[in-house]
Amino acid sequence: MRLAILGGGQLAWMLALAAEPLGIEVAVLDPSPDCAAGRVAELVCAAYDDPDGLDRVSAGADVVTYEFENVPAAAIERLHVLPSPASLAVTQDRAREKELLAGLGIAVAPYALIDSDDDVAAALERVGAPGILKTRRLGYDGKGQIRVREAGELADAVAELGGADLIYEGLVAFDRELSIVVARGADCAVAAYPPVENEHKDGILACTLAPAEGCDVAAAQAIGTQVAEALGHVGVLCVELFDTPDGIVANEIAPRVHNSGHWSIEGAVTSQFENHVRAVCGLPLGDPSARGWSAMVNLVGTEPDGAALLAIDGAHVHRYGKAPRAGRKLGHVTVTDPAALPAVRALADAAWSA
Amino acid sequence: MRLAILGGGQLAWMLALAAEPLGIEVAVLDPSPDCAAGRVAELVCAAYDDPDGLDRVSAGADVVTYEFENVPAAAIERLHVLPSPASLAVTQDRAREKELLAGLGIAVAPYALIDSDDDVAAALERVGAPGILKTRRLGYDGKGQIRVREAGELADAVAELGGADLIYEGLVAFDRELSIVVARGADCAVAAYPPVENEHKDGILACTLAPAEGCDVAAAQAIGTQVAEALGHVGVLCVELFDTPDGIVANEIAPRVHNSGHWSIEGAVTSQFENHVRAVCGLPLGDPSARGWSAMVNLVGTEPDGAALLAIDGAHVHRYGKAPRAGRKLGHVTVTDPAALPAVRALADAAWSA
Repeated sequence: MRLAILGGGQLAWMLALAAEPLGIEVAVLDPSPDCAAGRVAELVCAAYDDPDGLDRVSAGADVVTYEFENVPAAAIERLHVLPSPASLAVTQDRAREKELLAGLGIAVAPYALIDSDDDVAAALERVGAPGILKTRRLGYDGKGQIRVREAGELADAVAELGGADLIYEGLVAFDRELSIVVARGADCAVAAYPPVENEHKDGILACTLAPAEGCDVAAAQAIGTQVAEALGHVGVLCVELFDTPDGIVANEIAPRVHNSGHWSIEGAVTSQFENHVRAVCGLPLGDPSARGWSAMVNLVGTEPDGAALLAIDGAHVHRYGKAPRAGRKLGHVTVTDPAALPAVRALADAAWSA
Repeated sequence: MRLAILGGGQLAWMLALAAEPLGIEVAVLDPSPDCAAGRVAELVCAAYDDPDGLDRVSAGADVVTYEFENVPAAAIERLHVLPSPASLAVTQDRAREKELLAGLGIAVAPYALIDSDDDVAAALERVGAPGILKTRRLGYDGKGQIRVREAGELADAVAELGGADLIYEGLVAFDRELSIVVARGADCAVAAYPPVENEHKDGILACTLAPAEGCDVAAAQAIGTQVAEALGHVGVLCVELFDTPDGIVANEIAPRVHNSGHWSIEGAVTSQFENHVRAVCGLPLGDPSARGWSAMVNLVGTEPDGAALLAIDGAHVHRYGKAPRAGRKLGHVTVTDPAALPAVRALADAAWSA
């Protein structure tokens, strides 16, 4: 069996590493000759919307998948991708995402769409302030977002983000951030991972604790399952959640393997990467249960000394082989022994650069 | 950091898969363009004693290691390899292996060296019959061995195996076969895995249970540690053991990662592959403790249906991508849930071909 992946970054790299033991060949499409996945898979080096590149990466492939939600229309038109265009169309657009969630009866932050200056007043009336103004499309890791502290700031923020195709969201008063990762197979079976707790720093995921302690597991897993089923999703998806005194509120959907699921490589019976590969290849899903406690710590900006990390018992190091750059995810460390977490965090914090 | 591996089979493949997340580049030397490790590492396609191939695979490498003990002299002369030539010299020769073990006070089967017909009578007097006649060098998986049922058969067996450079060993009455895998770092630290129980079929490893229940853990780990220290070994080694009513008897030493350690990918905190890479690269060793119970089932000769294996919860499938052939190891399955073992064994047994 042969799998093509659009994108050759660290998510594709971990997908390829998961596919290899299953006997599944992988080819990746990426404009960078130095992309991480190119080290362990066949690399087609071309732009994501290059027709020749799309044809070459998909030649002989049984299925085409992707590592990011901003797949160009050219690729979707040319190739049959899984998860299907329905999953992409909804998750590429924050407005449709909110509508889907609200339509399923899942709590979301109050929001209003803004397509011109004329919508500002109504948006403020509906959502109030403070809030966050976001572009409907192409945002990630806090990019394309402006925090609006008081009502008077919204009009300027709208202008700054281009004046149209925006969504203004109310702030949710949450105790902590959670996320839920689920895999849905071609046979419609759903494997829900335990919900996890996420800590962010500078708008970037810094640490995931798995499983999240003392949260409403059934509610979180139901949200992931409902969303996957509503989208007819085949593959892994993640829903970012807020844990509030009034229950769980859904924030964003990512139609792919997710940074908050990286713990599953060592921490779950079957990793999110293996289950995504199994799902899109039409194979049975594996057990998503946690094997015990684990934590994932991101390495951002610059990397701590590799030997110092490896000297910590129970630290599992994943280095993506990317050049250092402020705010860039360069690797992660999974810790399966709670005693090892402080030492790993100290090294990661000292090297953190955003 | 860059690691060169002599050999590109499944052991090199799993070493490369373990090296990749550590940020270590791997190049492998193998005469076959289709070798397993060539899918995930840079492949230099040449004979193991080809000077140009040896130079190319080691160009820019910080360290050179190997996946099999029969490394040609040409390679050892040309390259600085780890584990060092001392480990190879002893383990390439069953006589020196036995002498090392006996010299350390470790129990071994009675044995006699046979270099001509003249040695047959003395060998029979010392060892008796039944016994096993083996070539001193280049034997594996039961090849280069003849079972001698009664004294009168030994002379013919000696002629059949070439008449010289042979070793005749007495049979050991054992309850079961065990093995011990240890890693020894460049800093002389030793990480000993728990001893495991091995079941063979047709002279080929069929199943490993980890950890072995009710065995003398300290005695087994002491044997592995003593051998590693006596050899000045840097890397992983395995000692195959017999568990007898009178204690543990050592059988063979493999100066490399070993099939009976494959369970450690999912079953141990740090796999034997990662620890071998760490050791030869001068990095700190990882924790070799078992994460719980696990079993490893070999897929030999032909492969069971992949989807049927994946449908068994808790089955971790490793397919080497090799063409089917009677007696050939094509993959293995690690099981982390005892309930899954019977189903995995049934599929493996049905496909087994030796």
